[in-house]
Amino acid sequence: MSGDEPITSAANDRIKRLVRLRNRRERDRTGLFVVEGYRELLRAAGAGVEVIEVYSCPELFLGKNDAELLERLRSRGAGVVPVAPGPFRKASYRDRPEGLIGVARAFDVSLGRLDPPASPLLLVVESIEKPGNLGTMLRTAQAAGADAVIVCDPATDPFNPNVVRASLGTLFDTPLAVASTPDTLAWLAGRGIATVAASPAAVLPHHQADLSGAVALVVGSEQYGLTAAWLEGADHRVVIPMPGSVDSLNAAVSAGILLFEAARQRSPREG
Amino acid sequence: MSGDEPITSAANDRIKRLVRLRNRRERDRTGLFVVEGYRELLRAAGAGVEVIEVYSCPELFLGKNDAELLERLRSRGAGVVPVAPGPFRKASYRDRPEGLIGVARAFDVSLGRLDPPASPLLLVVESIEKPGNLGTMLRTAQAAGADAVIVCDPATDPFNPNVVRASLGTLFDTPLAVASTPDTLAWLAGRGIATVAASPAAVLPHHQADLSGAVALVVGSEQYGLTAAWLEGADHRVVIPMPGSVDSLNAAVSAGILLFEAARQRSPREG
Repeated sequence: MSGDEPITSAANDRIKRLVRLRNRRERDRTGLFVVEGYRELLRAAGAGVEVIEVYSCPELFLGKNDAELLERLRSRGAGVVPVAPGPFRKASYRDRPEGLIGVARAFDVSLGRLDPPASPLLLVVESIEKPGNLGTMLRTAQAAGADAVIVCDPATDPFNPNVVRASLGTLFDTPLAVASTPDTLAWLAGRGIATVAASPAAVLPHHQADLSGAVALVVGSEQYGLTAAWLEGADHRVVIPMPGSVDSLNAAVSAGILLFEAARQRSPREG
Repeated sequence: MSGDEPITSAANDRIKRLVRLRNRRERDRTGLFVVEGYRELLRAAGAGVEVIEVYSCPELFLGKNDAELLERLRSRGAGVVPVAPGPFRKASYRDRPEGLIGVARAFDVSLGRLDPPASPLLLVVESIEKPGNLGTMLRTAQAAGADAVIVCDPATDPFNPNVVRASLGTLFDTPLAVASTPDTLAWLAGRGIATVAASPAAVLPHHQADLSGAVALVVGSEQYGLTAAWLEGADHRVVIPMPGSVDSLNAAVSAGILLFEAARQRSPREG
């Protein structure tokens, strides 16, 4: 696989550098982040993300496509660093490492990067309680055919390892922007995209709103809901009617219900 | 609050016993489990769950209703054990403990306990990858107005602290059973409840299936989907159409999409 001798100690400088990328400060300082796992690296490669290094432990490979992916990444300029199972497990963020950890260059997540098609379906998330939730929402948005996800919480780091992991690598496929609420409102208005904000205090059930055109579904935090800026600034407010006695849903589940209602309305046989 | 002196050491036997209840073996041996948090204990009390002891740390109380809840639990026979903040934090399962940890008696989760109304909406989950996912599904099922949740994975322990936590205590409100697949199929058939299994290989979109009558929505594991026993044994098979390029959803998100499509069809203005 490689002529190099594998790294056999977790005290090795490269392994320590890799582990440090779990910290946001280190990611911000270096402009790099970690992409662990076969599926995730495959999506990164498919989306043209620049993978600089791949730490590889063939003893842990699960399938026979891993070596092929490794060659593909190497041919695009990634350095391949063989690692023995012991130190690899130390460097891994997972309970069951799959033998592949990439280091990739963080990409642009500014609003200007987004270029949605006509009549797009967008998801706007006002704040993120847990990075894993953002990852699940990215995966759900991608499955529902959403054209982009905008996070209106400038503190969010989409390159957190838990985002990459929970998104199953869809972070690389779903156009994503991190922007302020005023910038996002202006950007959406400028493109004639209607904003539909989810609120427990709204009257219109989400399934009675028209979600078939150019629309951005806006969800707030699980704990506090949307801020006044969104509730007042949105074109429409909808409620997910809850017949049961609980009046809140997990944020990613709420986003999924709204996105798939939009997908239902946009499907050829409905409308 | 109590005439007793608070426990000041994490090495105290009662604190160690409390911590041991994080292990399934200890829960099975004692028939007890842990209910941590104000909201969770409030739901447990409301649902008539037998709370035996409450470990209390007033310094960590967030609201002013905590003392009232404590009195309510005490008046129903719970022993109240004051604990100083240091050892309380050690005993807590949370990053930000709220000052209340209850020990409750595990209750019956056999199929025989369920007594659904006419034309019920049920959720059947074939297997559970993470206890937190079951908790989220319980919360989602409760919000959607489901009448019961059945888990067909006899290895599942609904009294895992992560189930209690992710369910926000809805574990105590939503009738729940853990049973084998053959027993569940027979139980549902005997009550004339149609089974609707979710499968990526199905042809009928979930929103074109009739989910307005006596129906059990059946979801499999995120990784492997439903087993043949369910795919072949179910009355109907539906797919959640995914216009995007990802072909899988988080299991709790899938359950949410199906449950709220059923809720939409069952709402007075639809149908």
